[in-house]
Amino acid sequence: MTILANSATDMSTKSIRALYDELITRRKDISHFKSIASTLGWDQQVMMPKKAEDSRANQIGLLNGTIHDMETSPVLGAILEELERRKLTEDLSVELNPYELANIRLTRRYFKQGTLVPTELVKASSAATARSCNAWKEARECSDFSKFAPFLEEQIRHLRETITYQMKGGICEEAVRINMKARTNLGLSKDDECFKGYYQALLDNFESGFKDSRLEAIFSDLKQNLIPLIAKIKAKNFQHENEFIKGDFDVEKQAEFSNKFPKQMGFDMDAGRLDVSTHPFCNNAHPTDIRLTTRYALDNFQEGITSTIHETGHALYEQGRSKEYVDTPVSLPLSVGIHESQSLIWERMVELSKPFWTYSLPLLKEQFADHKNLQDVTVDQMYLAFNRVEPTFIRLEADEVTYPMHIILRYEIEKALVEGDIQVADVPALWNAKMKEYLGLDVTEDRLGCLQDIHWSIGITGYFPTYTLGSIYAIQIYTQAQEQIPNLDEHIAKGEFHVLKEWLNKNVHEQGSLKESGDDLVFDLTGKYLDSSLYVKYLTEKYTTIYDL
Amino acid sequence: MTILANSATDMSTKSIRALYDELITRRKDISHFKSIASTLGWDQQVMMPKKAEDSRANQIGLLNGTIHDMETSPVLGAILEELERRKLTEDLSVELNPYELANIRLTRRYFKQGTLVPTELVKASSAATARSCNAWKEARECSDFSKFAPFLEEQIRHLRETITYQMKGGICEEAVRINMKARTNLGLSKDDECFKGYYQALLDNFESGFKDSRLEAIFSDLKQNLIPLIAKIKAKNFQHENEFIKGDFDVEKQAEFSNKFPKQMGFDMDAGRLDVSTHPFCNNAHPTDIRLTTRYALDNFQEGITSTIHETGHALYEQGRSKEYVDTPVSLPLSVGIHESQSLIWERMVELSKPFWTYSLPLLKEQFADHKNLQDVTVDQMYLAFNRVEPTFIRLEADEVTYPMHIILRYEIEKALVEGDIQVADVPALWNAKMKEYLGLDVTEDRLGCLQDIHWSIGITGYFPTYTLGSIYAIQIYTQAQEQIPNLDEHIAKGEFHVLKEWLNKNVHEQGSLKESGDDLVFDLTGKYLDSSLYVKYLTEKYTTIYDL
Repeated sequence: MTILANSATDMSTKSIRALYDELITRRKDISHFKSIASTLGWDQQVMMPKKAEDSRANQIGLLNGTIHDMETSPVLGAILEELERRKLTEDLSVELNPYELANIRLTRRYFKQGTLVPTELVKASSAATARSCNAWKEARECSDFSKFAPFLEEQIRHLRETITYQMKGGICEEAVRINMKARTNLGLSKDDECFKGYYQALLDNFESGFKDSRLEAIFSDLKQNLIPLIAKIKAKNFQHENEFIKGDFDVEKQAEFSNKFPKQMGFDMDAGRLDVSTHPFCNNAHPTDIRLTTRYALDNFQEGITSTIHETGHALYEQGRSKEYVDTPVSLPLSVGIHESQSLIWERMVELSKPFWTYSLPLLKEQFADHKNLQDVTVDQMYLAFNRVEPTFIRLEADEVTYPMHIILRYEIEKALVEGDIQVADVPALWNAKMKEYLGLDVTEDRLGCLQDIHWSIGITGYFPTYTLGSIYAIQIYTQAQEQIPNLDEHIAKGEFHVLKEWLNKNVHEQGSLKESGDDLVFDLTGKYLDSSLYVKYLTEKYTTIYDL
Repeated sequence: MTILANSATDMSTKSIRALYDELITRRKDISHFKSIASTLGWDQQVMMPKKAEDSRANQIGLLNGTIHDMETSPVLGAILEELERRKLTEDLSVELNPYELANIRLTRRYFKQGTLVPTELVKASSAATARSCNAWKEARECSDFSKFAPFLEEQIRHLRETITYQMKGGICEEAVRINMKARTNLGLSKDDECFKGYYQALLDNFESGFKDSRLEAIFSDLKQNLIPLIAKIKAKNFQHENEFIKGDFDVEKQAEFSNKFPKQMGFDMDAGRLDVSTHPFCNNAHPTDIRLTTRYALDNFQEGITSTIHETGHALYEQGRSKEYVDTPVSLPLSVGIHESQSLIWERMVELSKPFWTYSLPLLKEQFADHKNLQDVTVDQMYLAFNRVEPTFIRLEADEVTYPMHIILRYEIEKALVEGDIQVADVPALWNAKMKEYLGLDVTEDRLGCLQDIHWSIGITGYFPTYTLGSIYAIQIYTQAQEQIPNLDEHIAKGEFHVLKEWLNKNVHEQGSLKESGDDLVFDLTGKYLDSSLYVKYLTEKYTTIYDL
């Protein structure tokens, strides 16, 4: 047992290989505990009896505490320190390959993340989060942002304190750079309060290594191009028919239809499961144990198949992780944005395409032979029905054209909040003004506006951009796949989805966290850093045709 | 986090209450980890995809190692030692109630069990067990005991070494006493090899505090009475009809029928689950999270309902554990035998009774209205069909009269093996001779004889007697229930099973491990220690009537 062996022996006599091996032994135990936590998380959503809530909370609390202790154990610290020292006199890459070097880099990051913030602050903000989440639920219930406002203020205060510790401790280098520059520009001393760069630090939690300045440029480009595109579509005042998607669809038959796709996409049913839950998700216990869930609407089949395909995209990433480096950090998914790209490639690039419906429409008609109005639908009609653009108040219901505007709006507000450019009380008015500007909608209730998402209430700030980064990664990676896989569209039209899955396995999944950022991954894969112009071009061309603009 | 905090502070300045609280904090964390292991065990049997086997083995290995480290941590040792020291000058029962004192007693026992045996021996015997289990499977496949024999020898050697360490370390007091007495009688020195009393030590692992000498007396009584009873029944050469139990029973309809019983017996579906698995079992994660499984035969309904009712008996024990002392050792079930009694009370005392079928037969007929030959069956006929006695080679298929003989046979052989009275090579011949003597059967294949059970191959020796202790506990406890619950039979005939469940909750389940042995529990409850004459009387009277002897 390693977890209780915390007395550091003399590290200086050990070889680099021996130090690395000791580090990996510890990381593997951490990985096993994290797998357990993931399986229990799945169980909680899908299987657990409701009275077990308290007992499960105790188990998860103990597991997370144990994982934290192991990630920040003094012996791990001594190993990392010794490896840093060796770097001064030796070239580690003589002994260790790039995957192994990445394992050291990531272990150091987790160690610092775990040790820099005082335990009292972690506890205080976790207690505040529980209160805040409840307050948000109540505020949303009565659609009154003012009831949530003081809790949001506390969350932001805790976030800022946390980041301050992290920046002082030597992580978030880019955030520190931005902050220093701002202080110089504003003539502030190091004791003056200044939160510039803090958003960069938050972004690092979810999209490590991605620069906020790049995000700003990308979002500015999207605004410039998508706002007019959305306005043009709206001005057409025309919609494609989608009545045949709706109706009374038997859940068992929907499941039978949807469940074909995970298998055909290459999801290994012997290394995972497919179940139903209120909120669809995909766990990440272990590449040999990936469990996705879906849900079905009773009045349409679109939600069921779309959830299934989306979560299968996530699941393929998890199942496709490196076998050679299993249970070590480098085998983990690179970032939240890259993870989202893997689900969106399948949900948007594939499921929303004509080749997909060339294959799937006959299956659908066969499965729902009793739905008379489905039988005469053509592939083109299905394509148009699945690709309707309709501005909506609710992010989760948005189509691929309007979705980025929901994200940009949240990004602008959360960044201004964290960096101190606006006050919490300003949020509703600002939200509603942006909704009008970006999507032409008048928000009449906070419930449909700034109270719709849980994220801020539980301290998840800096996450929203990854949804749109995911969309752009998806386009860029898929475009590359189309160039490299001969006749990809024809394969998809024949249901031969595995060719795409295998390409993604090799080019994305197996890479794990070898690269330092999603930007680096797409650069190495496509020769270009993340490129919003490709995304703008895709949306503009596709929807100019669809809506005959 | 407590699990890494292992530096003992000065214990001598702490109050007894403070020492106890510190002990309990540690025990609760151990309990949370054990709950996790139990849930993962259930998951493995019921939900886990097959390729996850290796990953799950890593998780379980790490969890068990962590639990072992926590149960034997030096701080816990220091607390226990300090409490021992205080006993010399203070009366602990002034500060602590009997439940709390039991928690200290049990914590000491686990600590000693975990620390007395060297880690190398634990590892060696766990590796040997894996090899031995495989060898047993292969030997059973080709029905050749000689292929398993060397592995069984190794298992016995490891068991003896383990017990030697435990006896030297001051647990197994009764075993030490037996051993000393035998040495004196045989004129052996303390350096001579002598394994007398070793079976007592094994028994303690499953039926703590129960004396092997009592077991011998009980089994001798059973042999004397049951062998002639079985012979008489056999001599009648007559069987009651049971054709209506067989046939093509739809699994969904069987499930619908069987699933009524757990609820009606008082199983809380919000604090547990009911699923299907190859081998029915009941987990013990937490009183709020008890998951039982069952299985259905396609060609009869008896197996499904019997498995469900049996496992529900176990589940009610687990759900009924003390809420006040939840997550501490005293809330745990008392022994394997008492656990078995809780399933057998429901399976044999209730399900095999006429009142049960008075209530259930109409439900059965309604559920299987398409089974014409069921419709005219009377309660008496169903009672006779469910209570057929038929000697069989296989323990798992045995009825309540012949079952004890299967156990006694195994007890006699495993005890003689461990204590050195016979050699491994003697097992098949001895098995077959006893089978002939006890049940009148000629064993023609090891597969149907000494190779049928997995227990010895995985080092589980000393466990078999608990099956029969469970049957006797069941009779004795149920007889007491009948005396104390007015009109129990009438309640059961109306499906009012909850009256029995509530009585068991109070008199058995909530008691947990407060008593030191099952014998103590039944004494306090019924005024008599475990009493085989009651069991003999029950079987003799019941089957004399059934077979008109």
